[in-house]
Amino acid sequence: MTNTQTQPLEMTIATEDYVVGVDMGGTKILAAVVDAEGKIISHSKIATRAEKEPDQVIDRIARCIGEAIEQAHLEASQIHAIGIGAPGPLDPERGIVIFAPNLDWSNVPLKAELESRLGIPTFVDNDVNVGTLGEHVLGAGRGVKNLVGIFVGTGVGGGIILNGKLFHGASKTAGEVGHMIVKADGPRCGCGNLGCLEAVASRTAIAKQLQKAILKKKKKSILPKLNDGNLDLIRSKALAEAVRRGDKVTTKVMRRAAKYLGIGVASIVNFLNPEMIVLGGGVIEAMGDSFVDQIRRVAGEYALPNTMNGVQIVTAKLGDNAGVIGAAVLAREMLNEMSK
Amino acid sequence: MTNTQTQPLEMTIATEDYVVGVDMGGTKILAAVVDAEGKIISHSKIATRAEKEPDQVIDRIARCIGEAIEQAHLEASQIHAIGIGAPGPLDPERGIVIFAPNLDWSNVPLKAELESRLGIPTFVDNDVNVGTLGEHVLGAGRGVKNLVGIFVGTGVGGGIILNGKLFHGASKTAGEVGHMIVKADGPRCGCGNLGCLEAVASRTAIAKQLQKAILKKKKKSILPKLNDGNLDLIRSKALAEAVRRGDKVTTKVMRRAAKYLGIGVASIVNFLNPEMIVLGGGVIEAMGDSFVDQIRRVAGEYALPNTMNGVQIVTAKLGDNAGVIGAAVLAREMLNEMSK
Repeated sequence: MTNTQTQPLEMTIATEDYVVGVDMGGTKILAAVVDAEGKIISHSKIATRAEKEPDQVIDRIARCIGEAIEQAHLEASQIHAIGIGAPGPLDPERGIVIFAPNLDWSNVPLKAELESRLGIPTFVDNDVNVGTLGEHVLGAGRGVKNLVGIFVGTGVGGGIILNGKLFHGASKTAGEVGHMIVKADGPRCGCGNLGCLEAVASRTAIAKQLQKAILKKKKKSILPKLNDGNLDLIRSKALAEAVRRGDKVTTKVMRRAAKYLGIGVASIVNFLNPEMIVLGGGVIEAMGDSFVDQIRRVAGEYALPNTMNGVQIVTAKLGDNAGVIGAAVLAREMLNEMSK
Repeated sequence: MTNTQTQPLEMTIATEDYVVGVDMGGTKILAAVVDAEGKIISHSKIATRAEKEPDQVIDRIARCIGEAIEQAHLEASQIHAIGIGAPGPLDPERGIVIFAPNLDWSNVPLKAELESRLGIPTFVDNDVNVGTLGEHVLGAGRGVKNLVGIFVGTGVGGGIILNGKLFHGASKTAGEVGHMIVKADGPRCGCGNLGCLEAVASRTAIAKQLQKAILKKKKKSILPKLNDGNLDLIRSKALAEAVRRGDKVTTKVMRRAAKYLGIGVASIVNFLNPEMIVLGGGVIEAMGDSFVDQIRRVAGEYALPNTMNGVQIVTAKLGDNAGVIGAAVLAREMLNEMSK
């Protein structure tokens, strides 16, 4: 066969090469049909209804996937694989969610259940692993062999890419950046320990400090006004807006969070010395470049001489779509892995 | 050819398969001829004389290697390769010691200089990387794919084995466990930063705390008596003996060091989740099992649920010979790598 004969055939295959990426959260499920170039063809969204039984929630995931496929004017048979980013510790090989407190799930065989409902090969991984994988293949970390993703939101999560592949570790829990201890005997973390990175730099930790400063110590701040008149749940956008408007209390608390994140990054650079650290998640996205600059500066101070040579600290690129795109990448990589 | 014909030939090759491992320290140089099974055939020792010019120190290394070969009743032509564990940040690919404060070396092309003197392929790596490699191939970590070595002595150093091979990282500095920050705003480290693991758990940090408690705060202790009547340079064996005899101050300080080492180990388990952590170095060796038990217990407390499944925390096995054996392993692995 000559080149001119084979090329059209290959192109036809490429445009038909669809997978579905699913971002499964405690409040909403997002699904998207994604093509071979990582382009989103269609997407759908549905409430998780986490209070229902796992079986019913899985029905909702299946429905959300079905709707995305329908919107793309495709048949289920045209979808090669489904990738899901799910919360909590899980077994990526068997596709079992071991424990997800915000869903009240334990040992739910998500992969098997979806495969039996939809008849499409399904792959499951941790949501932050999936986010890291997405950034590696289609986002800020393209072409980088070894990188660490750090996502700052309600908690601090992360994922590790080594030699171009997700690294899961001995107990499939690798990447728990938020539970590196940066301040021994420091504030108590949700995990029960003292001084984890998550306990000093997550939005939860930031909120606690602001509530204490503004509500207890009565420090003046425009933050409550920017956050729907209260400080019950502080949104990342309100934090960013308060800093932008020069709010002193918020600026101080955010500078402290940036310092701890910089120390966490430096610990990783000193220990693992990856080529890249990708910073993402709600807090990073809302706060933007100046916040990342602060983190970068502190990391540079705390990194040993020379260790920063060849290490880039960058902002994640996929934003709101990181979950579904990362999950689509997972689906594709696992499919490739299986066909080897 | 039949089996009976080839076997004697193979065995002859095996017994002739020698390399030299060199452990290069600030005060002494050790060299050993090591066979294919990792057995030491002969060894020699010489003072480093670090005050001399690099060229003269390299002459001394060459002489030490020559003596080890002579003692083994071998010719230089029978040595396949030389491996060297050297202090300080270095470029393992080019075999250049970038900076070694205790030798007053900067950018010394150790590999090239030795190869031109001895005509034997020479490979250089960081001393703690070499120690980790030795434990991986011939010590506590045999058959383990992913492990981290932590060596506690004057400082706290380490090395990382990923997928069965030394991991050097983006700037060839991976494994600096001692400069993971475990206590933000804590004691100042030799590197200039605050709260590094080395600043709270190395023998240097331990000595500072004991000097303060015993000399400044006048706490009663048998440690000075066990340490040649003074506390100028505290030996690991004196620390161990003081704890064994129930010395309260020393016991308290060592318990604190074990706590920080446990926190460092937990950070690594939560972040990288390797199959094994090997603890070695002078302090660990002298203090023994009960100290490692304390570290293991704290690490277990600070590790997230499930992350310790499949992770072993063990004591290094090669002891005093770790340096030369690890360097011999380096020589052999690099030779294999090159012949691929």
